[in-house]
Amino acid sequence: MSLNIREFSSSAEGFRSELESLLAWDSVSDAGVQQAVANIVEQVRLQGDTALIEFTNKFDRRNVASSSELEITRDELALAKGRVSAELVASLEAAAKRVHNYHERQIQPSWQYQEDNGTVLGQKITPLDRVGVYVPGGKAAYPSSVLMNVMPAKVAGVSEIIMVVPTPDGVVNDIVLAAAYIAGVDRVFTIGGAQAVAALAYGTESVPKVDKIVGPGNIYVATAKKMVFGVVGIDMIAGPSEILVVCDGKTDPDWIAMDLFSQAEHDEDAQSILISPDSAFLKAVKSSMDKLLQTQSRKDIIKASLEGRGAFIHVENMDEAMDIANIVAAEHLELSMDEPEKWVEKIRHAGAIFMGRHTPEALGDYCAGPNHVLPTSGTARFSSPLGVYDFQKRSSLIYCSPEGASELAKIASPLARGESLEAHALSAEYRILQDEKGE
Amino acid sequence: MSLNIREFSSSAEGFRSELESLLAWDSVSDAGVQQAVANIVEQVRLQGDTALIEFTNKFDRRNVASSSELEITRDELALAKGRVSAELVASLEAAAKRVHNYHERQIQPSWQYQEDNGTVLGQKITPLDRVGVYVPGGKAAYPSSVLMNVMPAKVAGVSEIIMVVPTPDGVVNDIVLAAAYIAGVDRVFTIGGAQAVAALAYGTESVPKVDKIVGPGNIYVATAKKMVFGVVGIDMIAGPSEILVVCDGKTDPDWIAMDLFSQAEHDEDAQSILISPDSAFLKAVKSSMDKLLQTQSRKDIIKASLEGRGAFIHVENMDEAMDIANIVAAEHLELSMDEPEKWVEKIRHAGAIFMGRHTPEALGDYCAGPNHVLPTSGTARFSSPLGVYDFQKRSSLIYCSPEGASELAKIASPLARGESLEAHALSAEYRILQDEKGE
Repeated sequence: MSLNIREFSSSAEGFRSELESLLAWDSVSDAGVQQAVANIVEQVRLQGDTALIEFTNKFDRRNVASSSELEITRDELALAKGRVSAELVASLEAAAKRVHNYHERQIQPSWQYQEDNGTVLGQKITPLDRVGVYVPGGKAAYPSSVLMNVMPAKVAGVSEIIMVVPTPDGVVNDIVLAAAYIAGVDRVFTIGGAQAVAALAYGTESVPKVDKIVGPGNIYVATAKKMVFGVVGIDMIAGPSEILVVCDGKTDPDWIAMDLFSQAEHDEDAQSILISPDSAFLKAVKSSMDKLLQTQSRKDIIKASLEGRGAFIHVENMDEAMDIANIVAAEHLELSMDEPEKWVEKIRHAGAIFMGRHTPEALGDYCAGPNHVLPTSGTARFSSPLGVYDFQKRSSLIYCSPEGASELAKIASPLARGESLEAHALSAEYRILQDEKGE
Repeated sequence: MSLNIREFSSSAEGFRSELESLLAWDSVSDAGVQQAVANIVEQVRLQGDTALIEFTNKFDRRNVASSSELEITRDELALAKGRVSAELVASLEAAAKRVHNYHERQIQPSWQYQEDNGTVLGQKITPLDRVGVYVPGGKAAYPSSVLMNVMPAKVAGVSEIIMVVPTPDGVVNDIVLAAAYIAGVDRVFTIGGAQAVAALAYGTESVPKVDKIVGPGNIYVATAKKMVFGVVGIDMIAGPSEILVVCDGKTDPDWIAMDLFSQAEHDEDAQSILISPDSAFLKAVKSSMDKLLQTQSRKDIIKASLEGRGAFIHVENMDEAMDIANIVAAEHLELSMDEPEKWVEKIRHAGAIFMGRHTPEALGDYCAGPNHVLPTSGTARFSSPLGVYDFQKRSSLIYCSPEGASELAKIASPLARGESLEAHALSAEYRILQDEKGE
């Protein structure tokens, strides 16, 4: 079984524009989706549970009569956990613990400092009150995503975490529910799609309104999240998952082939790119792929993904590889090479960086500790992995001493008048101390 | 001149729903605006400078022939600064210095830690490469906003800061340009509206593509920012500005009246609310307002704002005032009272908290140090003041030792197989050390 993967050389003319075409991804939802989602969101906002039940019955082919049927209790989650194998529960618990430990390092404490005249400045940092976590149902039901979305919120100290997960035809996924139990989700509703996003954003009689919605979903979910952005906070809208492997040519080609497969097996739009200065190694990885592909249970998806969006890029040297990595700004960047700690200095943009031959993305996906919710499609240029900081927010603190206020007012007053905001100026000037007003 | 301001009592029946109505703000842009903005964004994306010049000439009534006419050089900024009064320049410089000092406390360093088996985990924190700052032109041209949007990006270490500011009829604002010079803006383009947002998001022949766009603007700018969100990062979409003053009744009523005016004078949609347990004090502030209003240069705006969206709320006690403050989640919260440092403990949601009788919002607006770009319309429940953290992003670091990888692979493998992701499992299992595979 031979794969037909694009091959590029960085020295070829037009490489840069070919790279741009390779990376291009347009996630814009069409007008039809926009209209459908706008309608669903509006109905749920206005009619609450009535609309939520109607859409759930329609889209998930269910027969829910009352909103109480939409909730899964903590007791039921515990029962689901009991139905999962002991080995899998142990892995979920070990992963949850590692993810928890890593994210504890991200907690940001409030801070303040005092100036000589007694004025105090700072920032008070507090957790969000209530968060909604969207978990896809059906074929792409990932318990690991439950852990990755819930743990940072737990570590941040969010008081209440509401999970929504669609159950098409009423089928629940025990591993997902077990993960929700282990992660400490407070309430679970079996709703999905734009209707679940709307319910979380506006609240219904049964679903409490949250302050932020996180978690992946299909185009309807993504469109709905973008639509309610501002009413609630949202995380980044995720595109297809991608990996960029940079290898010096000295890692086992089978390992690299499988690392690329592990990304490609997600779906047909996933992207796997390999960069190396060693053309013989690129050929060896290609041979490994051809050899290993037929053994893969998801070989059709892997083939479609690699042939549709995959690429091998031959570069002149490692410096050039790092330049290309910064252009790609990959969600997952694997530095499979000697002394990755030196090369990582040159990386400015990446969601997560996997260093060394023994660090495949799969370890980060599940249990290394860092979050697997990462910026896709080059958005690592301006955004970050999901983290505790996404579930904390800040309030500026300003406490002026009378002397401090008097000094600041003398700076603020001309600025306010320069902006023709006289009441601002007067409000400041009232705080100039009497014995200084004659200055 | 008597103001007709709503008065509420927290003990009255239906208070909670009246409060909700008072706070309600729908910032959704209508279909006409959406369509117009979508068209502008698309034209600029496809035609670059040609469309940018065409829209600029049309909307700003200009006669630009070539894209070079759209740029203002650093030398011209320096000349503009020379035309501003020495007092105002000194205030701008003093404010810039204080804002810089405060924001330096927000710089987040990279971090990592090593586990016993040699595995290293951490996060690399880096500045964004290039940022666009939108500055409104015309009547609402605020040099203080230039400082507040640019300084955190400078402190974060952003390499290039591009400012856009529309100049309707070709009129430039010297104070705004002076602020841009002082803040250290790298390039300035005299463009605005949705066309400026599109130019920054997609790049044109003359305007470089940025990674994030920040800064306030009208409904067209806000709609365009929301539209390009994902292509670039954006800050929060701001609603009208608001202040909530909680006073124990012992601050000079004139001071509180002017603090409320300073918010109301922004525009007719601005919101000023006063809460106190002291009904005589509420009456005194009302008298101060009636007395002071006629002296105000912006009295028409102040009147419209206070009568349209302002309110006085009488509460039973301070605890209740704090509860209401948490419901409002105000952009600006003034705690004008004894021992504000005790009461601030009860505040969970606010953009900025101004503590004590000598800390009017106006000092924070200009020069106290904290940012004046703050979450509005209750979004302080989930978002934060603009800060250095908005111009840094994170990359997870994972460097597994062979022993560490082997251990992690044994956790990851069952999880991957539980998700039917076989290549993930195999990619992990390849890293299980040979002498452990028989376990």
